Amino acid sequence: MFLEQLKLITTFIFDVDGVLTNGDIIASDSGEFLRTFNIKDGYALQLAVKRGYRVCIISGGTGAAMQKRFEGLGIPDIFLGVTDKVAVYHNLLARHSIKAPEILYMGDDIPDLKIMQLVGLATCPSDAVPEIKAISQYISPYTGGKTAVRDIIEKVLRVQSRWFDENPSAADSGK
Amino acid sequence: MFLEQLKLITTFIFDVDGVLTNGDIIASDSGEFLRTFNIKDGYALQLAVKRGYRVCIISGGTGAAMQKRFEGLGIPDIFLGVTDKVAVYHNLLARHSIKAPEILYMGDDIPDLKIMQLVGLATCPSDAVPEIKAISQYISPYTGGKTAVRDIIEKVLRVQSRWFDENPSAADSGK
Amino acid sequence: MFLEQLKLITTFIFDVDGVLTNGDIIASDSGEFLRTFNIKDGYALQLAVKRGYRVCIISGGTGAAMQKRFEGLGIPDIFLGVTDKVAVYHNLLARHSIKAPEILYMGDDIPDLKIMQLVGLATCPSDAVPEIKAISQYISPYTGGKTAVRDIIEKVLRVQSRWFDENPSAADSGK
Amino acid sequence: MFLEQLKLITTFIFDVDGVLTNGDIIASDSGEFLRTFNIKDGYALQLAVKRGYRVCIISGGTGAAMQKRFEGLGIPDIFLGVTDKVAVYHNLLARHSIKAPEILYMGDDIPDLKIMQLVGLATCPSDAVPEIKAISQYISPYTGGKTAVRDIIEKVLRVQSRWFDENPSAADSGK
Repeated sequence: MFLEQLKLITTFIFDVDGVLTNGDIIASDSGEFLRTFNIKDGYALQLAVKRGYRVCIISGGTGAAMQKRFEGLGIPDIFLGVTDKVAVYHNLLARHSIKAPEILYMGDDIPDLKIMQLVGLATCPSDAVPEIKAISQYISPYTGGKTAVRDIIEKVLRVQSRWFDENPSAADSGK
Repeated sequence: MFLEQLKLITTFIFDVDGVLTNGDIIASDSGEFLRTFNIKDGYALQLAVKRGYRVCIISGGTGAAMQKRFEGLGIPDIFLGVTDKVAVYHNLLARHSIKAPEILYMGDDIPDLKIMQLVGLATCPSDAVPEIKAISQYISPYTGGKTAVRDIIEKVLRVQSRWFDENPSAADSGK
Repeated sequence: MFLEQLKLITTFIFDVDGVLTNGDIIASDSGEFLRTFNIKDGYALQLAVKRGYRVCIISGGTGAAMQKRFEGLGIPDIFLGVTDKVAVYHNLLARHSIKAPEILYMGDDIPDLKIMQLVGLATCPSDAVPEIKAISQYISPYTGGKTAVRDIIEKVLRVQSRWFDENPSAADSGK
Repeated sequence: MFLEQLKLITTFIFDVDGVLTNGDIIASDSGEFLRTFNIKDGYALQLAVKRGYRVCIISGGTGAAMQKRFEGLGIPDIFLGVTDKVAVYHNLLARHSIKAPEILYMGDDIPDLKIMQLVGLATCPSDAVPEIKAISQYISPYTGGKTAVRDIIEKVLRVQSRWFDENPSAADSGK
């Protein structure tokens, strides 16, 4: 069943804090918040984009740092400062003519709850809050910011025989 | 007994270093100290404010970074650079006409000792120093900066049936 | 024997990287290296200074960040960019008219080896390299940057009944 | 066999992210990525350079921070922003007239796969991806950024009786 669901996925949607990061934000006196991303996650994200998957970011947080990091990975759909994730989700579906079963979401906290009840495959890091774990079809053995995202992308690409060819180019560096 | 105490709480007071952070401070050449906050703690803090709880920060540390982080979460009572936490505490009681039994404090080190002997409910992260653990009515299973604050806020709001309604808004993102 | 040695200590000398930090340095594009200090260590350091102990920092590293952090804790003897720790050590002895048995040193790596063979009490964090552990009279159960320094200062002050009086002031905040 | 291979090594090549760091990159609003290096690794790197070993860095990542860190350690061959690590490798061999059996490489992810199949001794941190572990002759017990690099340099220098003389100078501080 889970494997069958993985085969349908064309679109990844990721929350940022606690999913693509470990939930830490580093506050500076200038009011900037620095976030820590994982390079192995980055490798998987840029590979998914290159393989033709739709990769979207939806976060309540804001900041040029996030925008630049995700643009650098080739991610086209970046939604920051979002107060209503479900509205963004419905817009994504309409704009790209995609349907719930082909969408995988990874979230970790209560603001992800409603959108996770709509997507085809709800997933979370191992350190998500209990409310999110309770509604997830897959709980990664990895924590947020520590390759939970790599884990789920790799799972989807492997089951679809898209993970990597025998001659991976160093250009796929995710740096 | 502990559950009964939780029911009385209207006011949270938090120390910063070692409670809302893991105790690390990142020193930069400009003399700035960067602190690392947790996004799950942030979600709980802003929710508590929205639910009408009084949330206060009392820290011996200073810096625009802290001020901006806490203001961004909607916290009104932020006392930084404090050398006498007990004096601030008595001012808070007088100003808001609140009494000890409705006040919860979370601290982690010796500068928190005296104020913790005054409040209704003294709590600490699991990595507080022995002197503080010895006088705490509740020791969170979580460490400072790693959701000890989320843990205690959630406990209070749950026991008062204020944790979150069935339709949590993505606006409650704590980002 | 160890307790007897603790009673003689009047002077603490600390290495920085791997002792007052966990050994990480964060490199920025401007060429600055940010270091992460621990607030519980800071509390103990400023308390030791206030109690009249001589606290010295000797590091091969450099940077305004370190200088400002240690000055902020009231530490008078800060030696950065040191290439010969033993020479600094002998100067300290001569200048302050102190002798080896009253000096405690905490180091973690090979550059600390020779000075640690000269001081009265050689100590290290639990994650020091094997060469340093082999010559240490005391190995803290804590790692560098994670309260190994607090641990050894507290041990000395307790055995000398100088740890803290019954009315610790919030001013001793180590922030 | 492994010990015999260690004896032949004259040249170290290191990937950066996940090898000399733990794979985290800290994103700032200015678009800068901060990386965290380990001081014990730094000690080993500068010592290897001083002992006459060839030390090279090949990374898909870029940034003045990396350039400055590695230059500060005395490393002459620094290749950043590399999209084809194998091409750089062949250039290194030709330029320095070195051969595969004398070259040790440490990598952690798929962009390191092809070059690791060419060098004399392929090594990785304990948290490398499975594809890399599968082709490594040595898997360090340490993780990336947490002394995996120190571990392998120390192993080579020890087996070649070059680790450190009886009078290590504090100048070898790796700071």
